[in-house]
Amino acid sequence: MSVVDWIAADWGTSHLRVWGFADETVVHAAQSEQGMGVLSRGQFEDALLTLTEDWLPEGRITPVVACGMVGSLQGWVEAPYRAVPCPPAGGGLVIAPARDLRLQVAVVPGLKQARPADVMRGEETQVAGFMARNPGWDGVICLPGTHSKWVHVSAGEVVSFQTFMTGEMFALLSRHSVLRHSVSGWEQAGFIQGLDQGMERPEWLMSRLFSIRAEGLLQGSDPAMARARLSGLLIGAELAAAKPYWLGQPVAVIGADELAQSYQEALERLSVPVTTHDATAMTLAGLSLARGHLPEGNPSCVN
Amino acid sequence: MSVVDWIAADWGTSHLRVWGFADETVVHAAQSEQGMGVLSRGQFEDALLTLTEDWLPEGRITPVVACGMVGSLQGWVEAPYRAVPCPPAGGGLVIAPARDLRLQVAVVPGLKQARPADVMRGEETQVAGFMARNPGWDGVICLPGTHSKWVHVSAGEVVSFQTFMTGEMFALLSRHSVLRHSVSGWEQAGFIQGLDQGMERPEWLMSRLFSIRAEGLLQGSDPAMARARLSGLLIGAELAAAKPYWLGQPVAVIGADELAQSYQEALERLSVPVTTHDATAMTLAGLSLARGHLPEGNPSCVN
Repeated sequence: MSVVDWIAADWGTSHLRVWGFADETVVHAAQSEQGMGVLSRGQFEDALLTLTEDWLPEGRITPVVACGMVGSLQGWVEAPYRAVPCPPAGGGLVIAPARDLRLQVAVVPGLKQARPADVMRGEETQVAGFMARNPGWDGVICLPGTHSKWVHVSAGEVVSFQTFMTGEMFALLSRHSVLRHSVSGWEQAGFIQGLDQGMERPEWLMSRLFSIRAEGLLQGSDPAMARARLSGLLIGAELAAAKPYWLGQPVAVIGADELAQSYQEALERLSVPVTTHDATAMTLAGLSLARGHLPEGNPSCVN
Repeated sequence: MSVVDWIAADWGTSHLRVWGFADETVVHAAQSEQGMGVLSRGQFEDALLTLTEDWLPEGRITPVVACGMVGSLQGWVEAPYRAVPCPPAGGGLVIAPARDLRLQVAVVPGLKQARPADVMRGEETQVAGFMARNPGWDGVICLPGTHSKWVHVSAGEVVSFQTFMTGEMFALLSRHSVLRHSVSGWEQAGFIQGLDQGMERPEWLMSRLFSIRAEGLLQGSDPAMARARLSGLLIGAELAAAKPYWLGQPVAVIGADELAQSYQEALERLSVPVTTHDATAMTLAGLSLARGHLPEGNPSCVN
């Protein structure tokens, strides 16, 4: 196995993903389902070593830079939120207590906003990575996901952000509500139909949702159309509410999956200038940047 | 045990409730969790007999009139929806196949609406009961619940109706989403706060929901305020969307529980003339009315 200079870790609620770097290049990558949600405080170090122990050189300290829910109150160590407006990366890293002397684990803090109350953990690192790769860029960054985020960046700072529960709502409704009987598969025409309806009348969301069920019962409507329409209705309602973010701004969508493509397509229909960027690449660029804030051998909080 | 003239049954997805009548008076009542959702087609008769067998006189047929999901495709027998506009009660009862010769079980059909697609099963019986008790009443009937319904009635007919997934959404969000960590209990001031916010900006629902979580994290907000606010946000968004129903109309809320009280309070804040009526009483009045459409001994569909 190649030894590594440092390790990048994206450690969310449900997953841990790690990359080993040597000379600015990824030489190892691994992942597991040992997310924050299934670990108690004393179990994080073992979860990390399970994936990375073979990469660690003996006789020196390997820095590990981690972002995400690993820094929450229920994580390995709490990394207190930094308040916006502020640059997306800029210190505040907290060293996690480790028994293994080969490790120095630093956790990137999330961002908070007082009014309206909002928080993020993990996305700030993607935003930092994007801004490092696109210096001088002003506009809005959209991060689709379980809790999708709209982030206004200007002059190198995160000015404000807003979170929508769109992804979690889609999962709950499509798997656990009465709609589960009516939705399955994906038919793009349904997405566009729902998108237009959701954008036009976002306040009708909760009755339009039930009409998906009623159309299934009365018209035997196609479950693939219905599932895509459900997604379109929710994303359309999100776009209507997020209009103060995207109106008159260039938008960068971070994410390369089908969900990010759906957001890109929706924004293009609104004639918003939009580009899409790979989420993993942005995370790694952001963690590289955070590593620059890490002094050697400092055993506690790093500012 | 007193013998009965007939039996009324309210048979939904999760519960079966039965009442035995003698001379227009309830002389027996019972309930179980043998709802449609846990029964296959051949199990309905036994579920009914388990609760009512002791009430049945020997040597003659006892009519049973049932409403709710028992008449769905997955129920005891399918009672095809009647199309609005139509009176809420008016035939279409379907006889369910029974082995026990003492039983004649008739199932009340639900109502359907073509555009916007919508359906109800069970609520039509409460509406029929309300209209039987309030002859000549024109206005809007609101039936709060898992899937709350707004029903416009005029000149003895159901003109149109609309269903909102408000109750199911509250259950999903408060028990299964990330918000479950932040909500517990009930503090009425939170309900009013959420109601006003939901009414004013229904299109902001999905971001306001996440702010409940963020306020819990950043401000340590009271979980009882947060849970009531979640309910208020959802009901407020429903009221905003249902405005074409309640605006300028008297509203009758059917339901005597805390949820119905919340709707009554919300409507009063909008200066809507509102009265509240007991749901069980309306169901029984509606089933009595349906019994009048039941000819003696007819073995199949009754029109």
